[in-house]
Amino acid sequence: MKAIITYDYGKEKIDQIRALGYEVEIVLESNDRDEEKKNFCACSKDAEILVCYNPFESLKISDFPQLAWIQLSSIGIDQLPVREVIEREIVVTNNKGGYSIPMGEWIVFKMLEAYKYGKAIHQAQLNKTWKMNTKLRELKGKTVVFLGTGTIATKASKRLESFEMTRIGINRSGHKVTHFDEIYPIDQLEMYARLADFLVICVPATKSTEHLIDSTILNVMKSDSVLINVARGIIINEIDLIESLSRGKFLSVALDVFETEPLPNTHPLWGYEQVSISSHNSWISEMRNERRFDMIYQNLKSYAHDKKLDNIVNLKKGY
Amino acid sequence: MKAIITYDYGKEKIDQIRALGYEVEIVLESNDRDEEKKNFCACSKDAEILVCYNPFESLKISDFPQLAWIQLSSIGIDQLPVREVIEREIVVTNNKGGYSIPMGEWIVFKMLEAYKYGKAIHQAQLNKTWKMNTKLRELKGKTVVFLGTGTIATKASKRLESFEMTRIGINRSGHKVTHFDEIYPIDQLEMYARLADFLVICVPATKSTEHLIDSTILNVMKSDSVLINVARGIIINEIDLIESLSRGKFLSVALDVFETEPLPNTHPLWGYEQVSISSHNSWISEMRNERRFDMIYQNLKSYAHDKKLDNIVNLKKGY
Repeated sequence: MKAIITYDYGKEKIDQIRALGYEVEIVLESNDRDEEKKNFCACSKDAEILVCYNPFESLKISDFPQLAWIQLSSIGIDQLPVREVIEREIVVTNNKGGYSIPMGEWIVFKMLEAYKYGKAIHQAQLNKTWKMNTKLRELKGKTVVFLGTGTIATKASKRLESFEMTRIGINRSGHKVTHFDEIYPIDQLEMYARLADFLVICVPATKSTEHLIDSTILNVMKSDSVLINVARGIIINEIDLIESLSRGKFLSVALDVFETEPLPNTHPLWGYEQVSISSHNSWISEMRNERRFDMIYQNLKSYAHDKKLDNIVNLKKGY
Repeated sequence: MKAIITYDYGKEKIDQIRALGYEVEIVLESNDRDEEKKNFCACSKDAEILVCYNPFESLKISDFPQLAWIQLSSIGIDQLPVREVIEREIVVTNNKGGYSIPMGEWIVFKMLEAYKYGKAIHQAQLNKTWKMNTKLRELKGKTVVFLGTGTIATKASKRLESFEMTRIGINRSGHKVTHFDEIYPIDQLEMYARLADFLVICVPATKSTEHLIDSTILNVMKSDSVLINVARGIIINEIDLIESLSRGKFLSVALDVFETEPLPNTHPLWGYEQVSISSHNSWISEMRNERRFDMIYQNLKSYAHDKKLDNIVNLKKGY
């Protein structure tokens, strides 16, 4: 069984995988598409397993004629050539839950940064200005609405348990999930967006979530509410968002993901005072490689023993 | 019974106090000492109760010959002329607990801001630079040590309950307090400062806490630890702190209080990359006036009915 792994976890860890019976090749992904294609070309022909993030900008699924399983390091699968993968009946597993802890912490951070005026206080420090900011607010008593109730939203909502807020989750059917005070189905999104002091986007990018947050939703939100996106840029209609921002709407909009990444230097979103921009950064933690390796190793072990893999993606649903 | 109140809570609320049987005068505090003295001089002679923050830079206790009770809007009492107040046997009550919720939230914010590189990410936005910051960390698994286990530390530690950290409290005797995983007496401060990923200062300013955090403690702390002070500036020896910072110590030092406030424009602390400065801001929330009025009203009601006051300060202990 030949596995290509596109991140070097070090000799000790790779040897652990070899000990499971795998022939392992380490081939690094690269931003240089020609280089990436060259790196892969010698070994893609007989690879059965591909453990990767996204080599699909330079390679085609047809470059891997023996491929049976793709283990992604990401949670989202929007980088995959989904149609070809379905046609070839290649199994895809993702890193569901693998970044939920740092992302859950990030969401609480962005909520607090908005209410405690973190950006304005940093600006005052840059100007060496001593001035108490009397606009600071408290989370207690406020309502946070999570669009999506998967592992990321759950980890965030769990962390908010002692903040004395109302924590509402929105999912497709309205089915119950722990760590939320109330759950409602997606067809009630508009009603709960209206009530939200915080709206946190944690749904996968699929046909049905694309531009789900458009002017209809943005217009009903409170003028001093906070919008946070840690999922995918495509879920927000950025033109509609910019229109709202230009009218001075929102206390804070914290965006970690964008319709186009990297966010172009000339993009208007950089400049709004109420917008906090980060560079697809919310998932980072010092535990990321260890935690991801553990997940990959467990799945490779299951595969070697013909056991069921964890985190199999339903490619038709998109998550 | 004549009460001077140095903040105008509005006619409706002041009328509620008058309905308890008080003659109420509203006299505002002022940064202009001459103006403040003039404001007070007509009415200080026969005041029995003074509800204030700090008019004591322009007025002496001897300006209030009838004074029996001072209700402070602050938690700290370091602005009081303590010797004279003790001699005159004037009762002092403070606003213990009144700012604990926003300050508890603030502490969690500053912990997350440090680990999620909030300042550096804001700087990248100012420069319109798209670059993932791979240094971000997670709170999970880390150790936070609270110096002080009063209402502020307790509110913060309670909020950290679901973050999967070890939460240690340090108090005088090591007596148990809820919402901490472990509690140790103050004579073990050095040992736990050594272990701390976060050291959060929440003790009152007293003779025994002055410069408690000096080079002895700073030197044993981890090089990548986070130091947070929301109490009083005097608890840290700022010269020793600057010496540590100059050697590149600390991932982050979040200071809301300083030995001299306002922090002078020329003060070296403004400039360190690892220092976050705020202007004695952590207590602010939109609930501050309502919550403070409720506490003052309850105490005035108790006083009018000869019942025991809440939050009586032990002036000899200093809190």
